[in-house]
Amino acid sequence: MAEINLETIAKQAKETSYVLASLNTEIKNNALNAIAENIEKNKDLILAENKKDLENAEKMIEEGTLTRALYNRLKLDDDKMKVMVQGVLDVKNLEDPVHKNVWAMELDKDLELYKTTYPIGVIGVIFESRPEVVVQIAALAVKSSNAVILKGGSEAAFSNQVLADVIVESLNLVEGFPKNAVNLIKTRQEVNKMLEMDGYIDLIIPRGSNSLVKFIQSNTKIPVLGHSDGICHIYVDENADIAKAVKISVDSKIQYPAACNAVETILVNKNIAKKALPELIDALKKEEVTIKGDDVVKSIVADIEPAIEEDWAIEYGDKIVSIKVVENILEAISHINTYGSGHTDCIITENKQKAELFMDSVDSAGVYQNASTRFSDGFRYGFGAEVGISTNKTLARGPVGLEGLVVYKYKLYGKDQTVQEYSGSNAKKFTHKRIV
Amino acid sequence: MAEINLETIAKQAKETSYVLASLNTEIKNNALNAIAENIEKNKDLILAENKKDLENAEKMIEEGTLTRALYNRLKLDDDKMKVMVQGVLDVKNLEDPVHKNVWAMELDKDLELYKTTYPIGVIGVIFESRPEVVVQIAALAVKSSNAVILKGGSEAAFSNQVLADVIVESLNLVEGFPKNAVNLIKTRQEVNKMLEMDGYIDLIIPRGSNSLVKFIQSNTKIPVLGHSDGICHIYVDENADIAKAVKISVDSKIQYPAACNAVETILVNKNIAKKALPELIDALKKEEVTIKGDDVVKSIVADIEPAIEEDWAIEYGDKIVSIKVVENILEAISHINTYGSGHTDCIITENKQKAELFMDSVDSAGVYQNASTRFSDGFRYGFGAEVGISTNKTLARGPVGLEGLVVYKYKLYGKDQTVQEYSGSNAKKFTHKRIV
Repeated sequence: MAEINLETIAKQAKETSYVLASLNTEIKNNALNAIAENIEKNKDLILAENKKDLENAEKMIEEGTLTRALYNRLKLDDDKMKVMVQGVLDVKNLEDPVHKNVWAMELDKDLELYKTTYPIGVIGVIFESRPEVVVQIAALAVKSSNAVILKGGSEAAFSNQVLADVIVESLNLVEGFPKNAVNLIKTRQEVNKMLEMDGYIDLIIPRGSNSLVKFIQSNTKIPVLGHSDGICHIYVDENADIAKAVKISVDSKIQYPAACNAVETILVNKNIAKKALPELIDALKKEEVTIKGDDVVKSIVADIEPAIEEDWAIEYGDKIVSIKVVENILEAISHINTYGSGHTDCIITENKQKAELFMDSVDSAGVYQNASTRFSDGFRYGFGAEVGISTNKTLARGPVGLEGLVVYKYKLYGKDQTVQEYSGSNAKKFTHKRIV
Repeated sequence: MAEINLETIAKQAKETSYVLASLNTEIKNNALNAIAENIEKNKDLILAENKKDLENAEKMIEEGTLTRALYNRLKLDDDKMKVMVQGVLDVKNLEDPVHKNVWAMELDKDLELYKTTYPIGVIGVIFESRPEVVVQIAALAVKSSNAVILKGGSEAAFSNQVLADVIVESLNLVEGFPKNAVNLIKTRQEVNKMLEMDGYIDLIIPRGSNSLVKFIQSNTKIPVLGHSDGICHIYVDENADIAKAVKISVDSKIQYPAACNAVETILVNKNIAKKALPELIDALKKEEVTIKGDDVVKSIVADIEPAIEEDWAIEYGDKIVSIKVVENILEAISHINTYGSGHTDCIITENKQKAELFMDSVDSAGVYQNASTRFSDGFRYGFGAEVGISTNKTLARGPVGLEGLVVYKYKLYGKDQTVQEYSGSNAKKFTHKRIV
């Protein structure tokens, strides 16, 4: 079969997006049921195709071009298949984020304005390795009435293709659900081409390495939802409960050191440093964390590595943490706003006023008091599902679930009103009464 | 006095933005009162400086480099000064858009997550001619806790400078209000430099010609809030009340033909065309509107100009309108989504279901039933003030008031919770109970 080119796929997805925008919840839920059932039914086929990818991956490991960790992310099994199917049903059970009136105002009698949520349109998702992403994103797209164009990594080509085929087949059977809502593009079609389609694609979501995200951000006019670095901080205030500081710092660093929401730098107020640092460093060392400290830290706990300027701007992604002593909360805020990545930052304090000052002034998507930075995650936030974490300031911010995949329209219902009637010396007056 | 360079201004504005983020409403309202009083007090000085710009403008008119219309927009007088001062007080009386909890969830006992509104940070505003913009934008920025960097046109250099000076002086007198919140950059400093400051400036708002907006959109990585074209449509459905179609079309075209929300193309369902077109065209012609029609329109009303393909993609900004006969509502929707600019589009119909289909499927910031497209405006929407109209899909959309100048943060209040406690086989369960 001749391969359809990317521009045609994007154009068709755009046309479909207008139809998706008017679908009711029932049709979308039928579609999600169909996807879940069909994945279940085609389990053996899916595992067989996945096996082809795994065989290639084995060769790549031998050649040294693929790591064992990536192999494990690539591998599907019965458990992962169950989670996949359950994930689709979970999304089905979430509230429909589309067609919600978030605000409404009567402008005058018989002239009512509604601010209503609508899908974004066409979302391009570029991802690596994990084939589950195909199913997750497709489910979120269906529920939020967005069309998607998926571009996966070549290492998962067979798995991605069979999953996309199963999804498309399911959707084609659902009455009232339009064609071309879910699209997978082939490996040999370039990411670069996708990034040029700003006429058709409304949003790009990269899910992968920092370098992938950075490349995409600098090479497209399409808005990009995502984050490259995750440089998260904990500030131990002078009014901190030291036991909490230790407990939270350890969890934030070691619960999953490679995660973007793991802590990279701990700032300690100078008035509590002598008391807090020995305990804190001791606890981290017990978990085999390498400590890098500035001169003041080293003067209190000698047996650590020195931190240099570059340590404040690094996402280690590993069991390494940098520690710095600061004069006061203002220096901590300023350090975080300078070196941080706007992801998630935490203050440890028992002082409510200082917590508020920190949370107001630190310019990050997540600002925490006395809780692990690792909580920054769509599942833990109760969103049910997540398409990614955003450090953007003018798009959705923080973990992005269904709500982050909609935008709004203003709908105005009139009877025949003209602006002229509301202009000039005999102008009718607006009532401007809030309805919603 | 040595001129401070743009990078320093931008850096200082960024630092100030973190302070602005924690201001309470009272301090911001004091600042707005101070601005209003100070403008009133310095009226004569402001008018005198404005006169310098007007004298230069007279020369430019003689040389043919400035139009009389621009001169009128440039000119301040007692009435405009009154409106200016009242505008500041109106913004003061609006609800504070910052620190509002828009959503909140208990993740578990003593672990509460709040989604709270926060300012965007530093906003760059690039505008032409009208010096009132300095005051309007400064007031909106103060109320929404954003720092602003203003860049006006050289033709209004004296007026802009004196207004900015008066505002900065006022703000410097307000206890607790930080310095460098409002900044005006000089004409000889390039717009281009401002567009490169993506490390400091979070949002650019261009207010001016289509070509200015297009230039800015293609020359910066900073998100741009605005619209270049305003190609608005009216679709006269087969279930339209023709009298309403005529009344609304005339207002949408002639109430202010140069406005971005004026209608440019009217689409008429073929089943109502023979009846509606003669009345509609007659009414528009009475208002001296030039009509351009496709072949079908011309076959019904002969005495009009022909419309060519390019007419569907033009913002005339003048008393010209193109008219096309369409097969059905789907062709109308498809035409609008193809040629429109996502600004404001209206259906004239008495059929609720068709209205909903149109409003769901047309991908524009404003979708209307039976009301003039000219209603698309912050004042008419009841926002009290407007920084611009956006056709973006992932930023604020439609007329943008105070609410469009804030973004949100997730604030998490814990006691000492770690993610480890919620992981593994003995994991604590999240309660995920909505609070707000």
